[in-house]
Amino acid sequence: MKVGVLGAGQLGRMMALAGYPLGLHFRFYDPNPESPAGHLAELISAPYDDFDSLRAFAAGLDVITYEFENVPSPTARFLEEGIAPLFPSSRALDTAQDRLSEKRLFQQLGIPTPAFQSVDTQEELLSALKAIGTPAILKTRRMGYDGKGQASLTSPAEAEQVWQQLGGQPLILEQRIAFERELSILSVRDRSGKIAFYPLVENHHDAGILRLSLAPAPHLSHALQAQAESLARKVLEMLDYVGVLAIELFQKEDQLIANEMAPRVHNSGHWTMEGAVTSQFENHLRAILGFPLGETAPRGCSAMFNLIGALPDLTEVLSLPGARLHLYGKQPKPGRKLGHITLCGDRHDLMGPLVSALKTQL
Amino acid sequence: MKVGVLGAGQLGRMMALAGYPLGLHFRFYDPNPESPAGHLAELISAPYDDFDSLRAFAAGLDVITYEFENVPSPTARFLEEGIAPLFPSSRALDTAQDRLSEKRLFQQLGIPTPAFQSVDTQEELLSALKAIGTPAILKTRRMGYDGKGQASLTSPAEAEQVWQQLGGQPLILEQRIAFERELSILSVRDRSGKIAFYPLVENHHDAGILRLSLAPAPHLSHALQAQAESLARKVLEMLDYVGVLAIELFQKEDQLIANEMAPRVHNSGHWTMEGAVTSQFENHLRAILGFPLGETAPRGCSAMFNLIGALPDLTEVLSLPGARLHLYGKQPKPGRKLGHITLCGDRHDLMGPLVSALKTQL
Repeated sequence: MKVGVLGAGQLGRMMALAGYPLGLHFRFYDPNPESPAGHLAELISAPYDDFDSLRAFAAGLDVITYEFENVPSPTARFLEEGIAPLFPSSRALDTAQDRLSEKRLFQQLGIPTPAFQSVDTQEELLSALKAIGTPAILKTRRMGYDGKGQASLTSPAEAEQVWQQLGGQPLILEQRIAFERELSILSVRDRSGKIAFYPLVENHHDAGILRLSLAPAPHLSHALQAQAESLARKVLEMLDYVGVLAIELFQKEDQLIANEMAPRVHNSGHWTMEGAVTSQFENHLRAILGFPLGETAPRGCSAMFNLIGALPDLTEVLSLPGARLHLYGKQPKPGRKLGHITLCGDRHDLMGPLVSALKTQL
Repeated sequence: MKVGVLGAGQLGRMMALAGYPLGLHFRFYDPNPESPAGHLAELISAPYDDFDSLRAFAAGLDVITYEFENVPSPTARFLEEGIAPLFPSSRALDTAQDRLSEKRLFQQLGIPTPAFQSVDTQEELLSALKAIGTPAILKTRRMGYDGKGQASLTSPAEAEQVWQQLGGQPLILEQRIAFERELSILSVRDRSGKIAFYPLVENHHDAGILRLSLAPAPHLSHALQAQAESLARKVLEMLDYVGVLAIELFQKEDQLIANEMAPRVHNSGHWTMEGAVTSQFENHLRAILGFPLGETAPRGCSAMFNLIGALPDLTEVLSLPGARLHLYGKQPKPGRKLGHITLCGDRHDLMGPLVSALKTQL
């Protein structure tokens, strides 16, 4: 069977690496001809609005998916109405592409979110600030990732300044809440509606970019996991979702507050490659192809470190016992995700020396 | 870095899948243009004696290795004297290609082997039978694999018949010994001479083809593992070996008797993909590239089943909890290795129900 993937970045590359052992074939589509997945699979490189190229891409595919959630909606709809099914559906994609529709979905489903308000004009920004208060974050509704397209406000007096920075496009003002930690829940739903969940992951960001994930999240209670599964299930079922869905959460005392979702495999799920029985990449493929889902149970504890901007000394990293290296084949550039390293152990509290040794290399 | 691999079968394919996360690139060489590794890497398809194609293959490579131990010696020597180092060396390849030189090496190193004698003529067969007795096995010295090129003798009266079958090429007569079980030791030696060993594996063959590997071998004693490591170390050091080496062994009471060796990654090491911290494929690459070796410790217990000739119902297999499927992208054909399935668990004796469930599918 042949899987088409929109976007040929590292997520697509790791999806292909997970799919080859299932006997699958891959074709990627990405405007960038140097994309990482192109090293190990067929890559059609053309703009997302080149419908002739999209038609050539779709020919002979059994299913189409994406690893890039900013695929333009007309592209997704064109393919969805074509010869191969698209999973997750364009409806899920549309919802997740827009921070406002995403938060409205959470709200509609009774899932707690930070207070938010739509902002299209400077006047709306002022009235939103009155309603929500500060601290707050003004974000573009679309195309934001890794902390891009965002500005923090600690007082209403900063309204003019952030408007200069971001105004003129659809925005959303969100309450900045005080939370204890950031978590994410990775879930997967198959074509028959069966759902599986990975354990909650604890995420650490720096300058808006994920740096470290600990899985399962330390001190994870059954109640917290159940709360996360319950809210993810609501989203999956409401969207008739097929594939892996990631939801980023804030934990405040015993409550989970939904921040955003990604309709795709997710950086905070990379630990599943060694740290779970079935990786998020394989489970995404199983889901969209109509195969049964694989076991999501963890294998011990994992700590996943992103390699951002520059590579460490590989010989040093490879000499750390049990360090699993994943490079994406990209040229180093500040802020760019070049790879990740996963450490696995029996218990997080026993992994301290290894984590420290790795940190000296990063 | 770019690795060249002679042979583009499933072993090469799995090597590439292990090497991409290390940021490596691959180029394969195989006379068969439909080879499995060609689905996910560059493949030059030409005969092994086409030196122009070999030169094109070698251009720009950092290291060359092989996944097929019947690479002709002139091919290996041509590449070895060229622009990139070849590991394991042509000396190791030459030794392992010839059952007689392999057994003589074991003998020279004081490693127990079944009694054997070189057989080039019918007269030599008769005198070898007198010396060794029956039961015995007459084997071609070269090109045998998966039980091909072999004939069993239960009495000297069968000499004429097996000579008709195999005579006219260099042969070896080997004593057929009564053993309790077949084992293999996977070892790896890096360019600096450091050596690592995987735990002994218990292997079950049917019609000369490996069907099932249990790792670590059940009831494995420290003494038996030490005996295996000691004999493997002698071979590795004598050949100044670099890469993964597999040695197949018979266990008779507390003694290990060497049967044969393979100068490459090995079917009985496939369990390491999920069942060990570092897979045999990654450790082979680390060794030949000059990286430090990865940890060889097992992660629980593994049972690896080969898929021979025909594929089981994939939906059934994928619904077995924890079953890890590896397909090689080959067309089904009787006797052909099409893939394998690894089951992992905490203890072999707890895996019975899962093993039974899988066996009903195979």
